[in-house]
Amino acid sequence: MKVERTEIDLVVPACHGRAFVVAAGQYLAIEDVDGEQCGDFVAFNAADVTEFISTCHTRSWNTSVYLKLGHSVRTNRRNPMFEVIADDVGVHDILCPPCDQQRYLLHYGVADHRNCLDNLTEALCGYGIEKWRIPNPINVFMNVPVDAAGRFEVKAAPSKAGDRIVLRALIDCLCALSACPQDINPANGHRCTDMRVIVSNAL
Amino acid sequence: MKVERTEIDLVVPACHGRAFVVAAGQYLAIEDVDGEQCGDFVAFNAADVTEFISTCHTRSWNTSVYLKLGHSVRTNRRNPMFEVIADDVGVHDILCPPCDQQRYLLHYGVADHRNCLDNLTEALCGYGIEKWRIPNPINVFMNVPVDAAGRFEVKAAPSKAGDRIVLRALIDCLCALSACPQDINPANGHRCTDMRVIVSNAL
Repeated sequence: MKVERTEIDLVVPACHGRAFVVAAGQYLAIEDVDGEQCGDFVAFNAADVTEFISTCHTRSWNTSVYLKLGHSVRTNRRNPMFEVIADDVGVHDILCPPCDQQRYLLHYGVADHRNCLDNLTEALCGYGIEKWRIPNPINVFMNVPVDAAGRFEVKAAPSKAGDRIVLRALIDCLCALSACPQDINPANGHRCTDMRVIVSNAL
Repeated sequence: MKVERTEIDLVVPACHGRAFVVAAGQYLAIEDVDGEQCGDFVAFNAADVTEFISTCHTRSWNTSVYLKLGHSVRTNRRNPMFEVIADDVGVHDILCPPCDQQRYLLHYGVADHRNCLDNLTEALCGYGIEKWRIPNPINVFMNVPVDAAGRFEVKAAPSKAGDRIVLRALIDCLCALSACPQDINPANGHRCTDMRVIVSNAL
């Protein structure tokens, strides 16, 4: 698909997902509007959607289980897709999958809970991306510390109202963000709120 | 595809890949024949290859960045696929992608190096699985310790000749294993050797 350098300022409503495009060279800011809110972010190479964001290749490239300022976000072909050029929070998860129907059913016994996998699938359904092709996301502001034994648990997002992470796109991207509907564990401080996406041509 | 409960004893030659099937209830042993050799292992639900092994969902289910005895290996739909029922080594990587052409070119300046991604793709090409659909593998015996800051590096595999990990299959699986061709970093002790796959109906 052709991607124009359009500037975008988009609210992703609490517990929902939205798709958008970012052109090579543009800046993508993801903002926590009210604080303690995580967002699940995925992206595809707009010129070839069989190339997509890979948290696995991103970990390997940066030799880190965390995503930090200055890191390179890589695709499943190990190519550079974004770089992290600003970050108010410094805490993002690249270990966990998006929450899904199964997560709420198997762990909490709750059926038909809103979830990031369905949000991302709904957001991307007009682009021919089926559910099984949703990549593992970067979970922005999600707080999953790993201990010395390699165990981890989900804690409250440390982001405050207005906090942002800013990525610079290196290729044209089809993206989607889900404002995570997790209200059972502490990920979002037990209160699901909006996210905001700002795509700009200059910082 | 239909999967019979056939018993298998298969050598995966050094630096190459092989596909095989494992039926629900069968035991899959992956053996390091000569020691210090890693293998990249992937699997698909034989009844629906849009469901496949997911190191991401496996980490999340076991709340661990390492794969250990007793852990459940999960699919991209969070369903159980295997359980780890025996393990001589206790060291396996579920953080890193398979090595690929780009890995050798970008990190070491070496073109056309044999690699696990191409090995797995070649092994699975008769089953309609294209390269971009190869999941992130369980890297058996691969030694990637994570430090307190979340940084990691690749060290020599601690496996000795004859060491095995044994998985019990919970669904019928189409599988592939690559005997990793990495001879530049210490992953395989700078010496690439055979792996062995044993599929059995009883332990």
